[in-house]
Amino acid sequence: DRHIRREGQGCLCCGFVDVSPTQRNWKGIAISLLVIVVVCSLITMSVVVLTPVEVPGSSKSRLTVADLYKPEFSVHDPEARWISDSEVVYRNQDGHVIKFNFALNETEVLLSNSTFVAFKVAKFSLSADLKYALFAYDVKQMYRYSYTASYIVYNIYTREVWELNPPEVQNAVLQHAAWGRQGQQLIYIFENNIYYQADVRSISLRITSSGMEGVIFNGLADWLYEEEILQSHLAHWWSPDGERLAFLTIDDTLVPNMALPQFTGSTYPRGLQYPYPMAGQTNPVVKLSVVNLFGISHTQEVQPPDQDFYVTMVKWISNSHLVVRWLNRPQNVSLLTVCDATLGVCLQRHEDSSETWLSRQTQEPLFSKDRSRFFLTLPLKQGGQGDFHHITMFRLILFQLRSDHDEVRHLTSGNWEVTKIIAYDENNHTVYFLSTEESAQQRHLYSVSTLGLFLRKCLTCGLKEECTFFDADASPDSQNAILCSCHSYFILENNLPLRSALETKRTVQADIRIITNDNFGTTPLPLPAVLLDTSMIVDSGSSPGEQKVTEEFSLDWDWVLAGSEQVIVARLDGRGSGFRGQRILQQVHLRLGTVDTEDQIAALEYLMKLPFVDSTRVGVFGEDYGGFLTLMMLKSTEGLIRCAAAKAPVIDWSLYGERLHPPCLVSVQASKVLPNMKGLQGGSLFLAHGTADANVHFQHTAELIKHLIKIGANYTMQVNTKDIKPRFHLFLLVSMKVSGHQNKLHDE
Amino acid sequence: DRHIRREGQGCLCCGFVDVSPTQRNWKGIAISLLVIVVVCSLITMSVVVLTPVEVPGSSKSRLTVADLYKPEFSVHDPEARWISDSEVVYRNQDGHVIKFNFALNETEVLLSNSTFVAFKVAKFSLSADLKYALFAYDVKQMYRYSYTASYIVYNIYTREVWELNPPEVQNAVLQHAAWGRQGQQLIYIFENNIYYQADVRSISLRITSSGMEGVIFNGLADWLYEEEILQSHLAHWWSPDGERLAFLTIDDTLVPNMALPQFTGSTYPRGLQYPYPMAGQTNPVVKLSVVNLFGISHTQEVQPPDQDFYVTMVKWISNSHLVVRWLNRPQNVSLLTVCDATLGVCLQRHEDSSETWLSRQTQEPLFSKDRSRFFLTLPLKQGGQGDFHHITMFRLILFQLRSDHDEVRHLTSGNWEVTKIIAYDENNHTVYFLSTEESAQQRHLYSVSTLGLFLRKCLTCGLKEECTFFDADASPDSQNAILCSCHSYFILENNLPLRSALETKRTVQADIRIITNDNFGTTPLPLPAVLLDTSMIVDSGSSPGEQKVTEEFSLDWDWVLAGSEQVIVARLDGRGSGFRGQRILQQVHLRLGTVDTEDQIAALEYLMKLPFVDSTRVGVFGEDYGGFLTLMMLKSTEGLIRCAAAKAPVIDWSLYGERLHPPCLVSVQASKVLPNMKGLQGGSLFLAHGTADANVHFQHTAELIKHLIKIGANYTMQVNTKDIKPRFHLFLLVSMKVSGHQNKLHDE
Repeated sequence: DRHIRREGQGCLCCGFVDVSPTQRNWKGIAISLLVIVVVCSLITMSVVVLTPVEVPGSSKSRLTVADLYKPEFSVHDPEARWISDSEVVYRNQDGHVIKFNFALNETEVLLSNSTFVAFKVAKFSLSADLKYALFAYDVKQMYRYSYTASYIVYNIYTREVWELNPPEVQNAVLQHAAWGRQGQQLIYIFENNIYYQADVRSISLRITSSGMEGVIFNGLADWLYEEEILQSHLAHWWSPDGERLAFLTIDDTLVPNMALPQFTGSTYPRGLQYPYPMAGQTNPVVKLSVVNLFGISHTQEVQPPDQDFYVTMVKWISNSHLVVRWLNRPQNVSLLTVCDATLGVCLQRHEDSSETWLSRQTQEPLFSKDRSRFFLTLPLKQGGQGDFHHITMFRLILFQLRSDHDEVRHLTSGNWEVTKIIAYDENNHTVYFLSTEESAQQRHLYSVSTLGLFLRKCLTCGLKEECTFFDADASPDSQNAILCSCHSYFILENNLPLRSALETKRTVQADIRIITNDNFGTTPLPLPAVLLDTSMIVDSGSSPGEQKVTEEFSLDWDWVLAGSEQVIVARLDGRGSGFRGQRILQQVHLRLGTVDTEDQIAALEYLMKLPFVDSTRVGVFGEDYGGFLTLMMLKSTEGLIRCAAAKAPVIDWSLYGERLHPPCLVSVQASKVLPNMKGLQGGSLFLAHGTADANVHFQHTAELIKHLIKIGANYTMQVNTKDIKPRFHLFLLVSMKVSGHQNKLHDE
Repeated sequence: DRHIRREGQGCLCCGFVDVSPTQRNWKGIAISLLVIVVVCSLITMSVVVLTPVEVPGSSKSRLTVADLYKPEFSVHDPEARWISDSEVVYRNQDGHVIKFNFALNETEVLLSNSTFVAFKVAKFSLSADLKYALFAYDVKQMYRYSYTASYIVYNIYTREVWELNPPEVQNAVLQHAAWGRQGQQLIYIFENNIYYQADVRSISLRITSSGMEGVIFNGLADWLYEEEILQSHLAHWWSPDGERLAFLTIDDTLVPNMALPQFTGSTYPRGLQYPYPMAGQTNPVVKLSVVNLFGISHTQEVQPPDQDFYVTMVKWISNSHLVVRWLNRPQNVSLLTVCDATLGVCLQRHEDSSETWLSRQTQEPLFSKDRSRFFLTLPLKQGGQGDFHHITMFRLILFQLRSDHDEVRHLTSGNWEVTKIIAYDENNHTVYFLSTEESAQQRHLYSVSTLGLFLRKCLTCGLKEECTFFDADASPDSQNAILCSCHSYFILENNLPLRSALETKRTVQADIRIITNDNFGTTPLPLPAVLLDTSMIVDSGSSPGEQKVTEEFSLDWDWVLAGSEQVIVARLDGRGSGFRGQRILQQVHLRLGTVDTEDQIAALEYLMKLPFVDSTRVGVFGEDYGGFLTLMMLKSTEGLIRCAAAKAPVIDWSLYGERLHPPCLVSVQASKVLPNMKGLQGGSLFLAHGTADANVHFQHTAELIKHLIKIGANYTMQVNTKDIKPRFHLFLLVSMKVSGHQNKLHDE
């Protein structure tokens, strides 16, 4: 994930565990793990030092770049999902699609891996009745989530196949196709219009007709909604009974187009044009509708608020009602409304506002079945330490229309954050959630009672000592959850090949450091003897709300650099980073690139004083927002940074989308980062950018190099016509070897 | 000049000299010059070695990069032109525009430099009656020659000014504006239509109406005609009396558009689209017309040949007749016709054909006043040495319509080439021309009698010992010529500031080497003692017909590298280069990148064996066609080239314009140059390209890096959003220092 993100993202890889408090029998199979990172908590900064350990006489080999691309070093994601209270469908390591009933401990192969090979299947999904599969092939990625593909429908029992095409269209390339909630109902999107089939053999019904490619989007996000708002390319939502479909119509008619040049692939390459509202430009007009799919098709528009808004979240809370969040354009007021799907009328249930900006706007509230009660995480004041996100329970005490008559209860509190509400077990009066209570870098699953003293229990703490970063997906009845952590996948998938592969490699040692803002450079550190003459790369800055330093498992270039190249990789979460309370996060309000840059520099200065670090071989690297910070660091220091690398840096916030803009911007006038290069005396600057980058446009780097050429600065660069691959890190390494001293590696 | 050129270009900087044979009084003021390059002649290759000389205790400083940009190091071009048989108008070093009558030795200041400053004049021209000036400001370059500008008309005597605008247009940006041949008549081009004014105060008359921007061009070249055919953006020609104007109408309706992306300068940068026929694509349709400007405006189309053709040359030979050259699309048949401007009827005077391709197609024939006789340079067989271009005189012996009744005489012969016919003095039966008779790297002015034994005399040989590369511009009566050579400008301009500036710098020594194809590596060379541990850059290959090794004065990066950086710069003209006969030139026919690559490699291997060259620090550099050769060298060698740099290389000839295509191409199938990088073991490849390069599109480099990334090759690159500036050379130097050994420079 190489783009600017505001909020952290969950873990996809999952096992499952019974979380019901009445029958706590842990089923997780313990798998020992290599722990790479153990992290310090500190006031404004965390540092991870990955340290290579030379084990004398070890027969283990070093991890190489090539290893990272081998199948045995990849994490297999079973993509498990609940199909009933006791059944899960997932794909195992061999590629078979399995239905697993954990109550009966029965498994059934629904689709064999040979089927996938035969049809060159890139993506698949199963119909609600598990009789048919939808296979996508010729998948072409568009933006972060969106892609186009061709689809075939496959009868699992008869092995019959046929292509999925709109009426009177041959070999259609679709923007989306998926099964509905009942039987074999399915929808697909073609040329920005939604088509519906009641079953696999019935005739397609076109639900919308306003669709225009690149202009009006039905049920599908435009670039802005995909990348910045919904964080999905899908903008439609099935009612639980499959009778209704809610969808957005996004009209980009008045949004200016951005052009992405294309350089390769044809004699006369054509650029791609797409609506991209830069800061202050016209935003798309959005409309939420609900279509009734049973009987006579009828489309009802949902009543919007009286102002310019983003629709940031839509969720069905019953077969007839949905909850919608509307966020104003300055992103400081948001309305949570419950809407009647038949009438289109909405009632406000909650209003949020902020003096800075509102975060977690895609968060889905968890409603009780009768809709009288719902749960949200909201900032809660914790004495002098500012606000932290905690679970808030809203209860309708009278049959009132107005939300200010809700009873409000805070189920949790403390100087840590609830990161996600997982489930609400109404019978047992228990809410399940993930939080950072153990450590800001960890995520554990907790339960909390909605009664009495709101007793809280950690369900995963100590479950497996080395696994400290969990995600969970609860069963429909909230009695069980698919649980995932590290690369360990309880029952469903243990990723044994990966585990074996890692055991053949030399490990990297974990260091624990407690560093606070006050004692930079004074804390005594235990220094391994082998840490002599090491280079260091500082991976600079997370974007606002993001967290770089977590204990989530991730096998990346860091491992290669740390394990094989005698390079320490340090990651930093300064002020502006997420999951450590609102105060740290909102320090960057209206001063993006100021305090976070200061933190980066302070950390860098501290790290350079470590006795085992060769301060002439310290490099700073950043991508996207990190690239911006890297350049800001160059601008604010003199001769400190020997070697800097910025990948797809943002140079000018007025050229970036507005979503990150209003809450954080210094000011539009002072928004251009054109380093004077004093920070790089005698060193080198390396730039990398994809010319077809749809998020941070090549425009930014173009403006930068125009400036660098003008001032006669020395730099090198790398351009890719699509996106930059991670080999980039190696370039940085090469640069570091070049600048001044020769690296040990060079002599080998 | 960084683009692919087929033929050499003349020298702009001029002085003048009396060349009349009856009164040879040399007026040139001798100016001593630094001779940088003395060049060897050889069978297939010439090598220039620029050698730095360390003069111990010298107070002279080294030439630096910054020096090259200082005004005192620039050559002042007086832009002199004849206005009568004895009068010249030119601009002197101070910026005054001077009328100089050399018969009377009188000078008059027509425009003072303060006027230029006051109006921010970027370009100027004087009306035929010398009463008005046309000033261009806000000049914006388009392609190599074309630009847009705003214009004001300036009354030299009253100092009155007004803007030049088409009727009912304010603040017009014009594509061209210029005075006519008589009085104050002027034309300008706006939105691809030609406008005419009989005098400065009269109303503009629109001569054409078909003009459509980017589609139909009147009197102006499209990209193809500007870059590849006319080598000018102007496609109109005044009759001598100013009564008629011949112009091309170029219709690009069916020509596919190429897009040039634009990355900077606006929030939503827009790319530029322009018609660009790649090899095999539809060419523009072209039409030649003559408009009568006096009396009732009348436009007569000139009758074209019966086939697809390019108009490569148009020249008025009287007030009623013009000569036109039509070249077929495969570029192997060309017709020279004389056309009646009133009737539009043409008679063929000469036909050329070739088994390979025809060169010199923009060459203007020189006609006698009665049109009975004309002169052309044409290939003439010289025994076993193949064809060389020599002056051919055609004389109409009977009043015949058919050209095969012309009497044909070859005025010159020998294994050298006539490069340009300057003038024909009918009274003295003498033709003046430039040739390579002294040396292929030199150009001297000669006279030849059209009578008897065609006696030939060199007029500039020995004129100034150090000056060996001349150009000449004859007066209307052919009795005198403006003569230019080196940076010496006889009488008009001596470029004294440049001369003084150069005297403060350490010189680079000249080496003379005679190398033939047979004795690579065996010729004993005199080696200066100071030549120890030098790096070397080989500036690879001229494009077909071009000549890199000449004695023409040019102050460039070579000087800095050779004089200050202990780097030898070697230039090579292999097979395929121009001005050494058709046989050397046409060696590349249908095998572009084969024999010329061989010659580059042979020369490189030879040079690397020189005892004073550190063979680990030898780099190859090439731009455009040279970039193609650099990559071909990498493809054909293994481990030979330590460091290579290609600037805007052509990777795939099917993506390049057709003009260079049919004569030279290996084959379209084998046209992609994707080096396997074996040629670069342990070395480095550096690429540079401007993303807005209209000639060699960024597309080429994009395809290359796509390939390089795929094969995991190591390379660095530099991208500029416009064009790449020469600082590129420094990068190469940096690369050379990096690859393996440290350069001396680094320690200083």
